[in-house]
Amino acid sequence: MSGDDIEDDSEDAGTEGESNRVPVLLVRGDREYLVEPGGEQGTDLGVLEVPTDVQSGDTIETHLGDEFQVRRLRGPDLFHHFERTGAPMVPRDIGLVIGETGIAGGDRVLDAGTGTGVLAALLARAGAEVVTYEQDAEFADVARENMALGGVADAVDVRTGDVTDEVDALEPSSFDVMTLDTADAPAMVEHAPDLLVDGGFVAVYSPFIESTREVARTAREVGLANVTTRETIQREMQFDDRGSRPTTAPVGHTGYLTIARNE
Amino acid sequence: MSGDDIEDDSEDAGTEGESNRVPVLLVRGDREYLVEPGGEQGTDLGVLEVPTDVQSGDTIETHLGDEFQVRRLRGPDLFHHFERTGAPMVPRDIGLVIGETGIAGGDRVLDAGTGTGVLAALLARAGAEVVTYEQDAEFADVARENMALGGVADAVDVRTGDVTDEVDALEPSSFDVMTLDTADAPAMVEHAPDLLVDGGFVAVYSPFIESTREVARTAREVGLANVTTRETIQREMQFDDRGSRPTTAPVGHTGYLTIARNE
Amino acid sequence: MSGDDIEDDSEDAGTEGESNRVPVLLVRGDREYLVEPGGEQGTDLGVLEVPTDVQSGDTIETHLGDEFQVRRLRGPDLFHHFERTGAPMVPRDIGLVIGETGIAGGDRVLDAGTGTGVLAALLARAGAEVVTYEQDAEFADVARENMALGGVADAVDVRTGDVTDEVDALEPSSFDVMTLDTADAPAMVEHAPDLLVDGGFVAVYSPFIESTREVARTAREVGLANVTTRETIQREMQFDDRGSRPTTAPVGHTGYLTIARNE
Amino acid sequence: MSGDDIEDDSEDAGTEGESNRVPVLLVRGDREYLVEPGGEQGTDLGVLEVPTDVQSGDTIETHLGDEFQVRRLRGPDLFHHFERTGAPMVPRDIGLVIGETGIAGGDRVLDAGTGTGVLAALLARAGAEVVTYEQDAEFADVARENMALGGVADAVDVRTGDVTDEVDALEPSSFDVMTLDTADAPAMVEHAPDLLVDGGFVAVYSPFIESTREVARTAREVGLANVTTRETIQREMQFDDRGSRPTTAPVGHTGYLTIARNE
Repeated sequence: MSGDDIEDDSEDAGTEGESNRVPVLLVRGDREYLVEPGGEQGTDLGVLEVPTDVQSGDTIETHLGDEFQVRRLRGPDLFHHFERTGAPMVPRDIGLVIGETGIAGGDRVLDAGTGTGVLAALLARAGAEVVTYEQDAEFADVARENMALGGVADAVDVRTGDVTDEVDALEPSSFDVMTLDTADAPAMVEHAPDLLVDGGFVAVYSPFIESTREVARTAREVGLANVTTRETIQREMQFDDRGSRPTTAPVGHTGYLTIARNE
Repeated sequence: MSGDDIEDDSEDAGTEGESNRVPVLLVRGDREYLVEPGGEQGTDLGVLEVPTDVQSGDTIETHLGDEFQVRRLRGPDLFHHFERTGAPMVPRDIGLVIGETGIAGGDRVLDAGTGTGVLAALLARAGAEVVTYEQDAEFADVARENMALGGVADAVDVRTGDVTDEVDALEPSSFDVMTLDTADAPAMVEHAPDLLVDGGFVAVYSPFIESTREVARTAREVGLANVTTRETIQREMQFDDRGSRPTTAPVGHTGYLTIARNE
Repeated sequence: MSGDDIEDDSEDAGTEGESNRVPVLLVRGDREYLVEPGGEQGTDLGVLEVPTDVQSGDTIETHLGDEFQVRRLRGPDLFHHFERTGAPMVPRDIGLVIGETGIAGGDRVLDAGTGTGVLAALLARAGAEVVTYEQDAEFADVARENMALGGVADAVDVRTGDVTDEVDALEPSSFDVMTLDTADAPAMVEHAPDLLVDGGFVAVYSPFIESTREVARTAREVGLANVTTRETIQREMQFDDRGSRPTTAPVGHTGYLTIARNE
Repeated sequence: MSGDDIEDDSEDAGTEGESNRVPVLLVRGDREYLVEPGGEQGTDLGVLEVPTDVQSGDTIETHLGDEFQVRRLRGPDLFHHFERTGAPMVPRDIGLVIGETGIAGGDRVLDAGTGTGVLAALLARAGAEVVTYEQDAEFADVARENMALGGVADAVDVRTGDVTDEVDALEPSSFDVMTLDTADAPAMVEHAPDLLVDGGFVAVYSPFIESTREVARTAREVGLANVTTRETIQREMQFDDRGSRPTTAPVGHTGYLTIARNE
């Protein structure tokens, strides 16, 4: 009975070809680089050459002889390595979307707007195929680079444009989940009953109460079920010699999350 | 440009054989059954026979002629269909674990204690291979049935026993994430640096502040990084003709979530 | 050095005549009556006759010989003894109003709408003279009886009517604090700069975000300073043998409290 | 029907002699001074001489001819004008103490430890006679000066020393309310049943959960009733052109408030 009863398939999670496209982290103290197998990375300690068959746990030396450790990329690492075109959703809120909609392998997700692309990338990492729309062409380009960096370029289709203009071109009942983080989310919620499969979810993230209310109202009007809007407050706990208490500097408001189901 | 550019691989997310073992939901109004392809389900409206090649969106008639719709199973459905051996973690807290640890395809997770198994099943659905320990033999049996019901029996290894007794039998650095929801979580946190790969996460869910404090203290003592404990408060919003406000009946405390990383 | 260095003036907090009008509590186990000195109270254990010079700490027997203890009335007791014409503000929110506005002896308060009158009574008990408006004539009558019951009939002037119709009849700069708990609070906030002394406060309690927003907007438009709106969330802690945690059944939303100052 | 039906007794809230000892605020733009009637205040705009019969609403000129407005002192002003010997309780928490214990005219309060003295001063302003203990002799001196500054020197007896050493010298049943904000609060809670009148309250403010738990345990052990501990979370709301939401920078944890009653 041991952990290695589980096949260590982290290096070949798909076909050989695919796995080679998933970047790995090269870490030494505070230095951290995200590099594709077969790639090369310049550092202040010398150049790192990453073998195509690199594996988590390996050690790689720079040409000057300094060692870096190889790690698999994890979701939270994306927040540091993605180029930002705006404030991305925080891990907590992405987790709430995943938990409440049950994102899983085989899911087809329609996402708007892409922004930095962290949500799309993490949904893809959890097994979803994602079509995501970003109105700003430059932001969309950055998002595409981020998807490559995150090893999910195959699973995330970043489309430039306004999704509300493209609704007619989308196949009915072709999505399991819709994730919306745009100012005109209500306009897309109207189409949720058509675009979602039966049992599919729409998740809308909105910072202001007025737009949130409009989202919830629209969801009810078009007949979505179990429409609920929640605000999440988190307090970090502080443990020291004096005792335990919530920190005096808590996390602030991020957004309201509205979830509804197509039934 | 359409949603069907994405291959609809929901029915064949693995090999043909595997996909046939993933149960589908048969839904008619408030009636809802979770049945494996090829299986049979008695209902008050007659018997449903589910073809082996059943697909989401299909309609199936009972032998008496009443129609049920076929849906893919989603994570939140498990909360209704799993047999409970205790209060399962709520979708929100499972989402937070997934979001903060970045659960993704190829992850190997060590989980304890299994309980109803909702967390293990949802991690598996997000792509993880899970080894989970449950001390109570009957509960473990129920959890195994739940894994089959959830279509993740292949991905979740439910082991009967106390994980702290089995630590020596587990391969070092063989897990990407550890998820702990047991009274003696601190004893397992001690082993996190050995059992986790570099960059791996441990997530501990604990209802009481004293045990939470002990978890955080242990995590720091054994050298885990970024140890943070958070309490999550959610308020459901209420929108009606009078206006918008948090509901006067909010969700109560569930537990503290401590996250730490092996670095 | 002892507590009785402080004169025990609880029985003669004003003139002799006044003190006699302040009801006292007669308590025996779960039985509790609020009776004026000199009054009589029928109980299932017999009749209680309360001497005019009754003092806190005395014991009074019914005519059948059962003893009741005499206590001074405290603010929280009013919540049990006042006749309710609606849901009164909770002690917490009343405390927040008092704390944020600094209610003290000599304050002149304009209050609307009266409702059950708990806020007005507690402000009076903290030393304020209160003019309070209640549109519903029957509710106003109940409130007047409640003021007598609470021993603050002299300090609280319950007026029947809509305060917005009476603004012109109110003396400019004649109030130190305005407390508003009405649907048309914004209309009164407009008059705050005229009705309040320099340095005076307006406190508005409103359950819905839309009306709260209107209150805050109006306060800013008419030039009030330090306009802040806060939502208060309280969690009751639970301590038992298993440990400490917030209760799983917290107090829900009551209202938003907007405070502004006339400067 | 007008606001001036209420006697404007703010200037003679007690005897003539007392009222003269209550300082007033002299305000000009951002300049603000707290000065006793009959006193003199140097400013960068010249010297202000305050008449003994000064009244709220008056205007006073410096000897150089610049005008200052006279205002009554309000509770929240004390936070700016008191010399601090530590972080004082915030207005919100003082309000909660007042609201939950029903502080009113005639109350006798035992307070420990004094600290800056804001709580004692505000309880006095709401009508209480306060005996307050401060262990640090220098802090006690500052607190006495603060009481004079706040016009409540007659109502607040600041005693230097550890209240737990003085318990035997305090008269049984001589306090209506005890307010504790000291590390050894549990030791005083033990004496609450003796020191409080029937129906009296003890309010304990403690930042850490461990000491809070000890307070609640002790309160139950000595037979106090209705022992409740609450944590208060406040979110400031933000209203702008984009919409309404809780601010992204909320107020942090201050302390747990435990309330119990002597019954």
